[in-house]
Amino acid sequence: MSDQNNDQKLTFTFPDGSRKTFDRGVTGHEIAKSISGRLAREALSITVDNTVLDLHRPLTSGGNITINTWDDEDGRLAFWHSSAHVMAEAVEALYPGVKLGIGPPIEQGFYYDIDFGDRTISSEDLPAIEEKMQELARQKNRFDRFEIPKEEAVAHYREKNDPYKLDLLEGLEDGTISFYKQGNFTDLCRGPHIPDTGAIKAVKLTNTAGAYWRGDVKSKQLTRIYGISFPKKNMLDAFLHQMEEAKKRDHKKLGPQLGIYMIDRMVGSGLPMWLPKGTILRRTLEAFLREEQLRRGYQEVITPHIGNLELYRTSGHYPYYKDSQFAPMQVDDEGYLLKPMNCPHHHRIYDNEMHSYRDLPVRLAEFGTVYRYEQSGELNGLSRVRGFTQDDAHIYCTNDQLKDEIINCIDLTQFVFSTFDMPIDIRLSFRDDDDQKFGGERALWDRAQKEIKEAADEMGLKYRIDEGEASFYGPKIDFIIQDALGRKWQLGTVQVDYVMPERFDLTYVGSDNQKHRPVIIHRAPFGSMERFTSILIEHFAGNFPVWLSPQQAIIIPVSDQFNDFSETYRKQLADAGIRVSIDKRGEQIGAKIRNAETSKIPYMLIVSEKEMRSGTVSVRKHKKGDLGSFNFSEFLSIIKREVNEKALPETE
Amino acid sequence: MSDQNNDQKLTFTFPDGSRKTFDRGVTGHEIAKSISGRLAREALSITVDNTVLDLHRPLTSGGNITINTWDDEDGRLAFWHSSAHVMAEAVEALYPGVKLGIGPPIEQGFYYDIDFGDRTISSEDLPAIEEKMQELARQKNRFDRFEIPKEEAVAHYREKNDPYKLDLLEGLEDGTISFYKQGNFTDLCRGPHIPDTGAIKAVKLTNTAGAYWRGDVKSKQLTRIYGISFPKKNMLDAFLHQMEEAKKRDHKKLGPQLGIYMIDRMVGSGLPMWLPKGTILRRTLEAFLREEQLRRGYQEVITPHIGNLELYRTSGHYPYYKDSQFAPMQVDDEGYLLKPMNCPHHHRIYDNEMHSYRDLPVRLAEFGTVYRYEQSGELNGLSRVRGFTQDDAHIYCTNDQLKDEIINCIDLTQFVFSTFDMPIDIRLSFRDDDDQKFGGERALWDRAQKEIKEAADEMGLKYRIDEGEASFYGPKIDFIIQDALGRKWQLGTVQVDYVMPERFDLTYVGSDNQKHRPVIIHRAPFGSMERFTSILIEHFAGNFPVWLSPQQAIIIPVSDQFNDFSETYRKQLADAGIRVSIDKRGEQIGAKIRNAETSKIPYMLIVSEKEMRSGTVSVRKHKKGDLGSFNFSEFLSIIKREVNEKALPETE
Repeated sequence: MSDQNNDQKLTFTFPDGSRKTFDRGVTGHEIAKSISGRLAREALSITVDNTVLDLHRPLTSGGNITINTWDDEDGRLAFWHSSAHVMAEAVEALYPGVKLGIGPPIEQGFYYDIDFGDRTISSEDLPAIEEKMQELARQKNRFDRFEIPKEEAVAHYREKNDPYKLDLLEGLEDGTISFYKQGNFTDLCRGPHIPDTGAIKAVKLTNTAGAYWRGDVKSKQLTRIYGISFPKKNMLDAFLHQMEEAKKRDHKKLGPQLGIYMIDRMVGSGLPMWLPKGTILRRTLEAFLREEQLRRGYQEVITPHIGNLELYRTSGHYPYYKDSQFAPMQVDDEGYLLKPMNCPHHHRIYDNEMHSYRDLPVRLAEFGTVYRYEQSGELNGLSRVRGFTQDDAHIYCTNDQLKDEIINCIDLTQFVFSTFDMPIDIRLSFRDDDDQKFGGERALWDRAQKEIKEAADEMGLKYRIDEGEASFYGPKIDFIIQDALGRKWQLGTVQVDYVMPERFDLTYVGSDNQKHRPVIIHRAPFGSMERFTSILIEHFAGNFPVWLSPQQAIIIPVSDQFNDFSETYRKQLADAGIRVSIDKRGEQIGAKIRNAETSKIPYMLIVSEKEMRSGTVSVRKHKKGDLGSFNFSEFLSIIKREVNEKALPETE
Repeated sequence: MSDQNNDQKLTFTFPDGSRKTFDRGVTGHEIAKSISGRLAREALSITVDNTVLDLHRPLTSGGNITINTWDDEDGRLAFWHSSAHVMAEAVEALYPGVKLGIGPPIEQGFYYDIDFGDRTISSEDLPAIEEKMQELARQKNRFDRFEIPKEEAVAHYREKNDPYKLDLLEGLEDGTISFYKQGNFTDLCRGPHIPDTGAIKAVKLTNTAGAYWRGDVKSKQLTRIYGISFPKKNMLDAFLHQMEEAKKRDHKKLGPQLGIYMIDRMVGSGLPMWLPKGTILRRTLEAFLREEQLRRGYQEVITPHIGNLELYRTSGHYPYYKDSQFAPMQVDDEGYLLKPMNCPHHHRIYDNEMHSYRDLPVRLAEFGTVYRYEQSGELNGLSRVRGFTQDDAHIYCTNDQLKDEIINCIDLTQFVFSTFDMPIDIRLSFRDDDDQKFGGERALWDRAQKEIKEAADEMGLKYRIDEGEASFYGPKIDFIIQDALGRKWQLGTVQVDYVMPERFDLTYVGSDNQKHRPVIIHRAPFGSMERFTSILIEHFAGNFPVWLSPQQAIIIPVSDQFNDFSETYRKQLADAGIRVSIDKRGEQIGAKIRNAETSKIPYMLIVSEKEMRSGTVSVRKHKKGDLGSFNFSEFLSIIKREVNEKALPETE
């Protein structure tokens, strides 16, 4: 909060640029009310500059403000955070003596980690908790914030014999600690919260899971209860419908069923194997990106899946990220690490020859498979694995080239996701004032951040800036794509890096004949081929566009006698690069069609006496049914055009 | 040796089918002499049935015989083996007190591992040894074989305090032990040897290397001296010329120089990184094979680079081949192995679903990167590495399908290597009578061996059968290709496998509705992308055919003012899929041409005022010079045709 107002008046600037002045101590609620009664009813929190606050909190300084409603992410986060407190209150009421861990809002809803002692909680217990929550919500209990000295808070939890809150308190700075209280429930909490529980009109507790305290397997396993809540009943209905649809599309079901991948205990948890159909899908995605990258001046390299520990000591990835890596292997008294990332290898390739400023940017790309340790409980189909292939690239450029390269990265990412009809938002992670937290020169950071923002503005992208959320290496852009169900997924990242050029002593010779440091951009539009494929399966519900379909067409002769003729069609299609087969089994045509539908093959070409005589095909489209009769050459043009244009499947 | 003759007469059948009878005790030399004086002079050893013997040895049974001369591999091997003994004699004479390890013939020449005690031997010491060898050769010392009881041999070497020969003796069966003596040198040896040292007319000791006794790093490191010898002086001259040429083509020099690969200590020994140009080369080779495999009904899969130890315990690869593997990594109390081969993963994919006999053969292919431990002293550029990518495939078929599948594998291999103008020979490794040494049913082996031989005969291939050399799993076909320098390289293998189907309990349902075991064929035409690339670089001396060239054409504008026009050519070429760039540097045209020649770019397209006006290009071909002026569209057709036809570079 800026403190331009030291007197009794505070001036606030609204998102549309208009300004209003209020008495010092005015609350967000009062500001909302001054605009409209409806806004006051729908308001959930207020953002003053970059800080989100309770609506009831008296404001002590002015600045840029947003009154957050359900439509704002910060509004939803407060709503779900408050819902987590209500859930905790309900649980405490139903299960006296439980101990609470942490209960944050998440992308979609909230959770709370709870130590139920000897009791085991399963999904069957959730309806009762939901009901209690609804009862508490109807009480419209106000969320009240208060602060007490840290010692007092520690004494309180010590008396309650609560190891988790004591552990949390230990990590907090000395001084005053904030708490929130609603109804009979009080929790150590930074906030912000919504005004009262009354806004919570619909609740659904979705599932339970085991969760180690602080994610540490050596700590006690708590029960995590996931839930979601809404300000309107029909929003929950829509959400449940979406959940139902998501379940049908679950890549863990569809993936193996469509022959995309398998996971085999004997090979290893979290180590998917790409089956023949999945391999075609992946190779097609790779070829698509490779071709586009080539056009944009990338060069492909291939590096080994292990590296000497020396390499990772130089990059700092070892031992710093040891816990998320596989243990090193000892070879001839040297340690080797299963590659957790491709960057150090690429840096060494860059450093293999002298570069003049005229050679830059150097853009090294690799579909590089990396391995990271994930706890077995965290593994999930293709979306959370221990081995995955990044569509990785590292761009080595001058600071003057940075903006153009970032624009190119954003543009490539937009190009890629528009091909799948997936809109993207971006999040910009910038640095704050703390010089200790960030590597590289401050002036370079400032310039890069300014240029990233300019790039995003010029390209008309929606973005949010998270101050202080940059990594140590440099500012970063995250891409959040939206799938056909409206779900959001964070995929590719564009990371500016001022640190690795120093660590690997990378240079180029400038026009001044002096050595200079290049700046590095790390980027990966898909992020991981595995995770992106999991999203793609669910996005398309397995009904891939023709260009991506592992099998694009199937020829169905109505009886054996048309097998040979079908072969002439098959050959012409195959020669045109179409992935096609003939269903020669001695089955009824109905069964063959059903089979092709189940396999989600886009085109079924039925061949009988009539088609053979007239050189036509009777075309059926997956999920659409009979399209009628086509000259074979006409059909060939249609399917070739669909492949070339990467046409999207028509929605039902 | 067959013993059809128990009387005093022995009958021999010559390669041409003719027969001759001699008295029992006749020598190979006498038989050769009976044919021609020249054959007797050139004869080096005799093969009776499958056993190679000294020419002086009295024969005790008849059979199929070949009198081996320099033109026969068995003749050359005896020649080089004897040369190794002569080298040892020379070394003993010059360095009294040395201790000898083993001294076998190799593909090209021979070596001897020698413990020189405290002395250090380098290539500077070799000429003196060569000279001594020549002196000993001129003495025409006869190689005499004699046998003594093992105890006597042990006593002899114990007295000489020779740990190596004692170690060797320990591994031999009790009974009589054979020795060979020529001049002042006696060696424990199975033979065979040539009649006398006089045949050795030319000798070259090529280099020295460190070699651990029995290849065990924990043992003492001996000095290995490599050499080669010939029956004619001009053969050595030709060999030295070839060596010189090979040196120029050395992939360890050309590979990094042409931007194919690099090896970086910080990444790790034996772990090549494919640079941008090498990646294009490799991807082109992969695409070539992938397309051909697809046409032949293979399906591609992608599997992780690690696997649970359980997988390798099931296959028997762990702990059996532990010493050639990287050490396992511990993950959640389970061991994981960096994948030493792809087979077990593929077997699990096969086993992922039920197969009917109608689904077979299932052909799973993968460009699968595997890691094996090699001693650091053994590592060599791209040809001997610790991580390499196999063009692997596993074919699961019925025994009835085996012959066709083997023909298909041989045919694919022929197709592949004929594309590079590399002739192939094959070696068939069959089993002998020892049932303990081989897995699977004998009747299946017999059938497979018969069918492999039939296949090779039908395809008109030159082959050699090595009885008893099969692996435990099944009979095997090795492909030996010949490069442009006439050097032979063993590459791809076709391995029949009756064992893994049992170990992984793989089945298919036959037409009888019962479960049956499939048979597996392991095959890899290139063997390893790394090793094959090393051979390819040397085969073509880096002057790759156009379709394989990382950069296929370069446009050279004679001055800046033609840069823009050159761009129109570049675009048309690039749109046709040609890898092309423009040399826009402000250099003289001569310098630009020299640079393109050094980079071994097949086509240089020179653009000046004349070409711009007439829509032509002035074409220079790498190593050939000026081809004259072409209409641009004409040139485009030429280069496209060369790429499509995979045309080979014209030889100078």
